[in-house]
Amino acid sequence: MTLEVSSLQQRFIELRENKLFETFVIGVIIFSALLIGAKTYAIPSSTLALMKVLDWLITLFFLVEIIVRMIAEGSLRRFFTKGWNVFDFIIVAASLVPIEDSEAALLGRLLRVFRVLRLVSIVPELRVLLNAFLQAIPRMGYVSLLMFVIFYIYAAIGSMFFHHINNELWSNITVSMLTLFRVATFEDWTDVMYETMDVYPLSWAFYLSFIFIVAFVFLNMMIGIVLETLQREHEQHDKAHGEGIAGEVDHIDQRTQQMDERLVRIETLLEQLHRRDHTGSSGR
Amino acid sequence: MTLEVSSLQQRFIELRENKLFETFVIGVIIFSALLIGAKTYAIPSSTLALMKVLDWLITLFFLVEIIVRMIAEGSLRRFFTKGWNVFDFIIVAASLVPIEDSEAALLGRLLRVFRVLRLVSIVPELRVLLNAFLQAIPRMGYVSLLMFVIFYIYAAIGSMFFHHINNELWSNITVSMLTLFRVATFEDWTDVMYETMDVYPLSWAFYLSFIFIVAFVFLNMMIGIVLETLQREHEQHDKAHGEGIAGEVDHIDQRTQQMDERLVRIETLLEQLHRRDHTGSSGR
Amino acid sequence: MTLEVSSLQQRFIELRENKLFETFVIGVIIFSALLIGAKTYAIPSSTLALMKVLDWLITLFFLVEIIVRMIAEGSLRRFFTKGWNVFDFIIVAASLVPIEDSEAALLGRLLRVFRVLRLVSIVPELRVLLNAFLQAIPRMGYVSLLMFVIFYIYAAIGSMFFHHINNELWSNITVSMLTLFRVATFEDWTDVMYETMDVYPLSWAFYLSFIFIVAFVFLNMMIGIVLETLQREHEQHDKAHGEGIAGEVDHIDQRTQQMDERLVRIETLLEQLHRRDHTGSSGR
Amino acid sequence: MTLEVSSLQQRFIELRENKLFETFVIGVIIFSALLIGAKTYAIPSSTLALMKVLDWLITLFFLVEIIVRMIAEGSLRRFFTKGWNVFDFIIVAASLVPIEDSEAALLGRLLRVFRVLRLVSIVPELRVLLNAFLQAIPRMGYVSLLMFVIFYIYAAIGSMFFHHINNELWSNITVSMLTLFRVATFEDWTDVMYETMDVYPLSWAFYLSFIFIVAFVFLNMMIGIVLETLQREHEQHDKAHGEGIAGEVDHIDQRTQQMDERLVRIETLLEQLHRRDHTGSSGR
Repeated sequence: MTLEVSSLQQRFIELRENKLFETFVIGVIIFSALLIGAKTYAIPSSTLALMKVLDWLITLFFLVEIIVRMIAEGSLRRFFTKGWNVFDFIIVAASLVPIEDSEAALLGRLLRVFRVLRLVSIVPELRVLLNAFLQAIPRMGYVSLLMFVIFYIYAAIGSMFFHHINNELWSNITVSMLTLFRVATFEDWTDVMYETMDVYPLSWAFYLSFIFIVAFVFLNMMIGIVLETLQREHEQHDKAHGEGIAGEVDHIDQRTQQMDERLVRIETLLEQLHRRDHTGSSGR
Repeated sequence: MTLEVSSLQQRFIELRENKLFETFVIGVIIFSALLIGAKTYAIPSSTLALMKVLDWLITLFFLVEIIVRMIAEGSLRRFFTKGWNVFDFIIVAASLVPIEDSEAALLGRLLRVFRVLRLVSIVPELRVLLNAFLQAIPRMGYVSLLMFVIFYIYAAIGSMFFHHINNELWSNITVSMLTLFRVATFEDWTDVMYETMDVYPLSWAFYLSFIFIVAFVFLNMMIGIVLETLQREHEQHDKAHGEGIAGEVDHIDQRTQQMDERLVRIETLLEQLHRRDHTGSSGR
Repeated sequence: MTLEVSSLQQRFIELRENKLFETFVIGVIIFSALLIGAKTYAIPSSTLALMKVLDWLITLFFLVEIIVRMIAEGSLRRFFTKGWNVFDFIIVAASLVPIEDSEAALLGRLLRVFRVLRLVSIVPELRVLLNAFLQAIPRMGYVSLLMFVIFYIYAAIGSMFFHHINNELWSNITVSMLTLFRVATFEDWTDVMYETMDVYPLSWAFYLSFIFIVAFVFLNMMIGIVLETLQREHEQHDKAHGEGIAGEVDHIDQRTQQMDERLVRIETLLEQLHRRDHTGSSGR
Repeated sequence: MTLEVSSLQQRFIELRENKLFETFVIGVIIFSALLIGAKTYAIPSSTLALMKVLDWLITLFFLVEIIVRMIAEGSLRRFFTKGWNVFDFIIVAASLVPIEDSEAALLGRLLRVFRVLRLVSIVPELRVLLNAFLQAIPRMGYVSLLMFVIFYIYAAIGSMFFHHINNELWSNITVSMLTLFRVATFEDWTDVMYETMDVYPLSWAFYLSFIFIVAFVFLNMMIGIVLETLQREHEQHDKAHGEGIAGEVDHIDQRTQQMDERLVRIETLLEQLHRRDHTGSSGR
């Protein structure tokens, strides 16, 4: 019995590692994506019925595929320790939820859209990319907090002074923050400004100071990401190319130390030789 | 008496260093920020009365907290030598100003908004960030001056030629500079351009040259910040990692110098040995 | 006969390498570009007839020039192994297609526009630039794919939820992707957002998350290009300047290794000398 | 007589080098700039008369100042070999042109605006900045040419296909290039696109490909500037800090070479010693 299970597991591991199987899975994901895209067009109901069937087939295939990978992994616990497996499981499980209600049908379709994300989890290069993105996030944490504080203060001031000028843009702090985000993207920001300048002629200082501060903080955020990525790339490059200049310099450092020690020994020997020779000559 | 004061100071120092107390202060700041945000919504007058009480409690708490820190510091003079203490003191003092007049009440609320900035002064990471920002400013001073000169010249020309075309956009040099800032953010800049091109068909050259020059200077400003930050990060990295490659190379440089000196001594010894041996053999 | 052909080839090679001939070709290309530009203005029919003649003369000249280069190359196969030759051939061949039909005349003119691209293939500096651009593309492949996946998912969601709000912007997935590209360029994106916020008040989260993700991925793409170009420039600089620091360090590394080996030999010699001298003295 | 002139020259050199005089010149330039700015406001005619007098006084002062510098320089030829002197001379000379005609008065005022640029030529830091900018330009030459070729081709195509759709935006190649520049700045570019998409539904490909190519080339241009500036800064840093790592490594390289040569001599000596000692011992 254990042997049978084990051989099944073995076969599933082989299937999982199979390049052809992987390509087929990618194919199904792309087909699923196209199906989702096609549904946004007006389609005759006959085709719609066919698509429903295809949709269920895809759901079934994804279910089988994830079970194969679960068994191949050996234990469920080990399967769920890998983040990407959890990611895949949630996507597959979500698309399994049976929603018949016409209202919630939209939600069902929405959940199926996220299947396209499986492309990210299955193509190794995309996985590496996403990991790199996720690793850069913590570095930006405090900068984002600072950005939020700036938005909050400006939104509070804006809402306080301008809500009676334009209630749609400045009614409360949430709406004001959205308006300020709009200003930060330069989207018709002068319309917002000219309106308040009619009442407070100096309010341009509010907008200009906000734009300068946000641009400045954003730039630093960007630099943070650039530096982070540069460092990461650099380390990878160093690992790949035998540690680079830093490694070589370190190598030279160690060798010169050895040489120095050897030189000390040589000098000692020579001095002994010299002294003895001297005493030898003089004692002769 | 001195002992008592000293023991009070000691207890206040302990309180100030207490992690729990710090967390509580942060909590109060955030609560204060939420209160400010909540006030921008339409609230029933009963809640408003409660909020007023809370507001005074927060003001009182901040007052107590800053007095605690003042006493903990020992002397007022030492307290005010630290920039962040002055920053906190001004924010707390400003929110103490009693403004009853309904007109100026807005100003009172405005002053309380800046309490959110205390978050920056209390969270060490945000303090470091802001310091880094402030340090990058001087480097940008002359570039900003150059930028201002460019804006000023273009604004003078714009105001001179276009004020009879659109008096709202080009009436005087201040308004013209604001209009040019709008052009620099690409905000409906073609509307501004097409209007003047009806009178001066070649005025596109005015806008295009302005956009190119400003973009160019701005880029250099950005690079200035990037370089500044890169250098700062680099130095910090070098300090943290035992001075990096530069330190190691310097190390090798010194050691090879030592080795060279030793080699000179060895060669001298050998030559003496050689000569003596030679005279020894020949003289035998 | 072979001699004649060979001498013709020789003469054509000389012609091709002739700096004056190259300048003349560049002149013809620029003249051809000006002709194309001039045709976009309203011109009297008499001048138009002249331009038609000039156009045919240019076509003829380009044909002759490419034949000269073909013969100069020796064999057609060798000619077509160079990418730029194929590029030139296609441009020249395309402008030869005789289109008399008034409808398709536009296509004929279109094909002639691409002659301006010959400027890129003939000026070596532009060729180098374009090559550098093309080399940077593969690196961006997977990032572009990730970008496409993000656009696709957001477009599917947008089309699903918003197509009944504004059918022009969200009718199907293709149109939705175009709308999202518009949002990514900040072009009147708030108009798009406010419209959907009337129905789904929380749809701002859809737009803001999209903007943040796209900006983030785009930034990384940009960094990718920057790194790629930096590396390439660095390598070229190293090659040009005798391999730079890396080369020098490598040089030092090898030399210290030699020195170390020599030191080992010296020590061995000295030890032998020392031992013998010792036995010599003791055995005397 | 020569002595007198020489002593006058000497006194003028002293005046030119005088820090106070320089500050006064800067003050006059700033006052002149403020005067130019003030003129863009509506001013009573009495003040206007005063301003006219002040304007002439400033012109006179600038004239005197440049003559002082000319004499201080010794010879006119030497004076005009410095670019900044030519720059100053042109600005001062231009503002001397007497224009009485009311039409051309605008031109006279325009020429006086450029006096503000004298701030750049007199403040050394701004001069350095502008020099750095000018040095970065040649590097961008070919990229700008490539950019122009791209704009030209797209403008030719756009004008060809779209001039009957919107004659104001696409009437000829010049206007089309301006429209494309507008598209490149994302300024209401979708309005331009939607208009042509009504006739050519696939024309979005025209705009998107244009945006991608231009953004790509522009990015490389930006990188070019960044690299240029980085390199320049790096060289200056190296010069300032005793040639940096590169210099130190070079130093080590030379010293190890010396050491190696010395080691060769030592080895030779030792081998001779060894051989003689050997023959000595065996021959004894």
